[in-house]
Amino acid sequence: MKVGFIGLGRMGAGMAASLLKAGHEVTVYNRTPSKAAALAARGAKVAVTVADACRGAAVMTMLANDQAVEDVVFGDGGVLASLPRGAIHISSSTISVDLAERLTAAHLAHGVRFLSAPVFGRPEVAAAGQLAVAAAGASEALDEAAPLLDAVGRETFIVSATPATANLVKLSGNFLLASVIESLGEAMALIGKAGIDRRRYLDILTSALFDIPVYKTYGGMIADGKFEPAGFAAPLGQKDIRLTLAAAEHLDVPMPLASLLRDRFLTLMAHGGERLDWSAIGGLAAADAGEPRGLAETSAAGRA
Amino acid sequence: MKVGFIGLGRMGAGMAASLLKAGHEVTVYNRTPSKAAALAARGAKVAVTVADACRGAAVMTMLANDQAVEDVVFGDGGVLASLPRGAIHISSSTISVDLAERLTAAHLAHGVRFLSAPVFGRPEVAAAGQLAVAAAGASEALDEAAPLLDAVGRETFIVSATPATANLVKLSGNFLLASVIESLGEAMALIGKAGIDRRRYLDILTSALFDIPVYKTYGGMIADGKFEPAGFAAPLGQKDIRLTLAAAEHLDVPMPLASLLRDRFLTLMAHGGERLDWSAIGGLAAADAGEPRGLAETSAAGRA
Amino acid sequence: MKVGFIGLGRMGAGMAASLLKAGHEVTVYNRTPSKAAALAARGAKVAVTVADACRGAAVMTMLANDQAVEDVVFGDGGVLASLPRGAIHISSSTISVDLAERLTAAHLAHGVRFLSAPVFGRPEVAAAGQLAVAAAGASEALDEAAPLLDAVGRETFIVSATPATANLVKLSGNFLLASVIESLGEAMALIGKAGIDRRRYLDILTSALFDIPVYKTYGGMIADGKFEPAGFAAPLGQKDIRLTLAAAEHLDVPMPLASLLRDRFLTLMAHGGERLDWSAIGGLAAADAGEPRGLAETSAAGRA
Amino acid sequence: MKVGFIGLGRMGAGMAASLLKAGHEVTVYNRTPSKAAALAARGAKVAVTVADACRGAAVMTMLANDQAVEDVVFGDGGVLASLPRGAIHISSSTISVDLAERLTAAHLAHGVRFLSAPVFGRPEVAAAGQLAVAAAGASEALDEAAPLLDAVGRETFIVSATPATANLVKLSGNFLLASVIESLGEAMALIGKAGIDRRRYLDILTSALFDIPVYKTYGGMIADGKFEPAGFAAPLGQKDIRLTLAAAEHLDVPMPLASLLRDRFLTLMAHGGERLDWSAIGGLAAADAGEPRGLAETSAAGRA
Repeated sequence: MKVGFIGLGRMGAGMAASLLKAGHEVTVYNRTPSKAAALAARGAKVAVTVADACRGAAVMTMLANDQAVEDVVFGDGGVLASLPRGAIHISSSTISVDLAERLTAAHLAHGVRFLSAPVFGRPEVAAAGQLAVAAAGASEALDEAAPLLDAVGRETFIVSATPATANLVKLSGNFLLASVIESLGEAMALIGKAGIDRRRYLDILTSALFDIPVYKTYGGMIADGKFEPAGFAAPLGQKDIRLTLAAAEHLDVPMPLASLLRDRFLTLMAHGGERLDWSAIGGLAAADAGEPRGLAETSAAGRA
Repeated sequence: MKVGFIGLGRMGAGMAASLLKAGHEVTVYNRTPSKAAALAARGAKVAVTVADACRGAAVMTMLANDQAVEDVVFGDGGVLASLPRGAIHISSSTISVDLAERLTAAHLAHGVRFLSAPVFGRPEVAAAGQLAVAAAGASEALDEAAPLLDAVGRETFIVSATPATANLVKLSGNFLLASVIESLGEAMALIGKAGIDRRRYLDILTSALFDIPVYKTYGGMIADGKFEPAGFAAPLGQKDIRLTLAAAEHLDVPMPLASLLRDRFLTLMAHGGERLDWSAIGGLAAADAGEPRGLAETSAAGRA
Repeated sequence: MKVGFIGLGRMGAGMAASLLKAGHEVTVYNRTPSKAAALAARGAKVAVTVADACRGAAVMTMLANDQAVEDVVFGDGGVLASLPRGAIHISSSTISVDLAERLTAAHLAHGVRFLSAPVFGRPEVAAAGQLAVAAAGASEALDEAAPLLDAVGRETFIVSATPATANLVKLSGNFLLASVIESLGEAMALIGKAGIDRRRYLDILTSALFDIPVYKTYGGMIADGKFEPAGFAAPLGQKDIRLTLAAAEHLDVPMPLASLLRDRFLTLMAHGGERLDWSAIGGLAAADAGEPRGLAETSAAGRA
Repeated sequence: MKVGFIGLGRMGAGMAASLLKAGHEVTVYNRTPSKAAALAARGAKVAVTVADACRGAAVMTMLANDQAVEDVVFGDGGVLASLPRGAIHISSSTISVDLAERLTAAHLAHGVRFLSAPVFGRPEVAAAGQLAVAAAGASEALDEAAPLLDAVGRETFIVSATPATANLVKLSGNFLLASVIESLGEAMALIGKAGIDRRRYLDILTSALFDIPVYKTYGGMIADGKFEPAGFAAPLGQKDIRLTLAAAEHLDVPMPLASLLRDRFLTLMAHGGERLDWSAIGGLAAADAGEPRGLAETSAAGRA
């Protein structure tokens, strides 16, 4: 398929490469053009404007936040103004439910089709084309987009015919991940202060009950108190909890654990945690417990 | 080995059977004698008193709570009064850190050895001899007890030389499990109220991120709002959170997520949840959100 | 002074009447004109448009929320477009810190002056001209406005030269009030379930420690489980907690008690509490405790 | 009346002095005898043993915690063993509901009468005989004890015929006070970080809404970040929240705000707060917000 790809960050670059590998004809665009070079070397055409990336049957976008998506979609020469009638815009960014709903309506009004297809997985998984894709939208459009989604992911999960539901699934998934971090942070604060070796503890727990990468990766970072370099930066995690809470507020759903996570991120930010991995909120319980192996020891960004 | 086994509840019966299967000479005792019959049929001797189960080189106990352990250990004709000098008491019950410390001291004073070896796994896993065992105590005693621990579990994890540390690992593990339940409960309250199918959501999340039985089992119960029959009864889960918080209070470790879980269990108990599975706390978020698919729908014990 | 007054809700009507009583020449405006009749009878001129209320040296606005203020201020024929150069706009509405900052900048750009002067007190206190006024802005403007502020309040408290600080004081004051409600709700859930008479309890506590109207009024409503009619409607209280949290998020200040209040309001809204007094969140602790004297008993809007 | 008084701490000494001033014949006892000297100079007899203080028609006890009360009451030569039949024991200590119930039963079994009469007020109020007394027990006994209660307090509030209810009123009162501290701590963290003067803020709030000593005293300590010397030491406040939560757990009453306070006290203790006033938990919100005017600045005991 002829497809545009907008947004070549760590995730987007891997996804675009996967599209190329699967044989699609990909035109890439990035605000900072230098990031397109590596993909050009692998056969991508490089667009100079957003509009140039919107000439095919479909365009995928993978951008950092609501604002970036709004800029690319609604602006002069943006996606909406540029896509041919009947083309499909596949939005993989982690954005708010509210924006997904506005995008759905705007695309409909412009005679183009809109799919939400956020992804689960870290950059190396994106590079391997092994992401899990949660997709939602009209089934016909989903069928047409299947070759693209199959190229970036190991499996595509159809949520419903309403695009915003896929965004909510993604947000709530990040809420679940942050909950894992918080629970591990509290458990390690406890067993660490009791004198138990944190790494041994993690081995036991992940062998006995939690034998998945999520627990091993974040548990290891918390056990070691090492939150740099950031795989997924704390401000992005904070944003996703904020968007989860916003969606929940809209529906009158109280989520006390999400509220706790929100407060944890604020504490982290108040102590200079912008550049840490989001799992750094898992070091705050130890800090509250007065433990030297908390955030403070391993990072100048920690609680002074 | 010649070993006594005290406590033939759902977990204990499976563990005793595993010992028999491994070829050990097992003398079983249970307060309600009828439960010993099935094991007698498989070759166990049946003790009439606790003391009769304490004639071998080791005795294992698997009892419901601190009180039951105290009764069996400290009473007239109890474990301490009956074990031969140098014998080993292996305590697999989920008990408080405080009691584990008192047991350690009391056994030392009586010239017998004490190991804590709590286990992870549900009754069917116990019956299959596939539990995960977290063991702690003097290494010599652990070595001697290894054939017994190997018989009940698929793997034995040595925590440290201090018995109580294994109990803390077990308690904190149950805290992590309850945290999973709470996070799933909140996520499902949100996506359910947004109109997303809960089962489909669970499939996506467990495929994409959380591909372990814990998430599938509890997620399924929450998705369906079905908390009966109880695999692990709510009052037992409540007890473990209480003991986790007690250990944390002793060490000056604030655990806000554990505090939230504590409040959830109180709410559940206040609405008649004694006989539900502990995952029923995962229905409370939906109930707070006014959702019909919360606790109330599926159980008379739910919030009216 | 010649002053306009925009917004004749329950609070605004009392404030405008106080201005008249103090001898000021008041031109009133309300979107629904009928509310101006009573004030006209007491000597007010009635403006047909917002602009007509902006002909004097000052205009006061007392509106329901950010949106209402934005409409009145920024619209065609709005306050900014209509006020003579050098005139003063005194905003008494409870609005966000963010809007107060935008208003400050916009007024400056239009050559008019802006003061924030939110007030503490319920409608009957407004009618009596006995409000407490928290005012902030340039000191010269505050001096000129003093006769107006003195007319509506028993005392004016100058916060700082930055208008938005007065709004933050007001919001945080409402946070403190909601905290009182929550604490009373939990205490009464406890003592009520213990069989102690709630009214007697309230008498003791307010005599011994908390001898102020806040505790008596809200305590009485909670003790009786009577949250109608609403003196201050729950959605307004919810809005103020939301704005408090927004201001706190902007400054990286975690406020766990405010987060708890946020969740309480969501639970209340999820159970039909829109028309109740905001003190109805004080009935939720009893409802969680399974108490019949909680919200459910006294209102169809309560938790079913 | 002829009355014994046991426990001459800061509160008890003032109460005993008030009894003397009212003309009662008082025999005082304290574990550390030196504290009795000042009262002897004012006419008190000094008992050498607990039993010597139990010869009259009544004995009052004012002790630090459950353990101290149990020692004095149940021990050899203790209150129960020494009081003449029909005499009254008035317990003013802040103790658990559970102990109050056990005391009630034990006194009944010994043919003596038991009243709970905990008090509200700080040491200087005790010295002035102006405490608020919450009393509970059999009405006949309350009538007989009235002259004693009137001597120590400005007003006696009868809770019910069940002694433990007065203890619960006292505990819940301290929960309300700690809630005030937490709410002020969060509000001041917010307004302080926004650059508003904390003392000015406190003046406004206490003038406008919270014109009672509780808000002024604790608010002032939080505004200044000065938590020494301790008027009411943090470990005592922590104990009272613990006892409140224990009573609530017994009744299946979730109290999320009390849980938050519990966690705050643990954080404070983990950072060396044993010797600070309990209002020091009001400095933790500022510390979480990274504010220099939090706990750390004013005390070496603060969060490092």
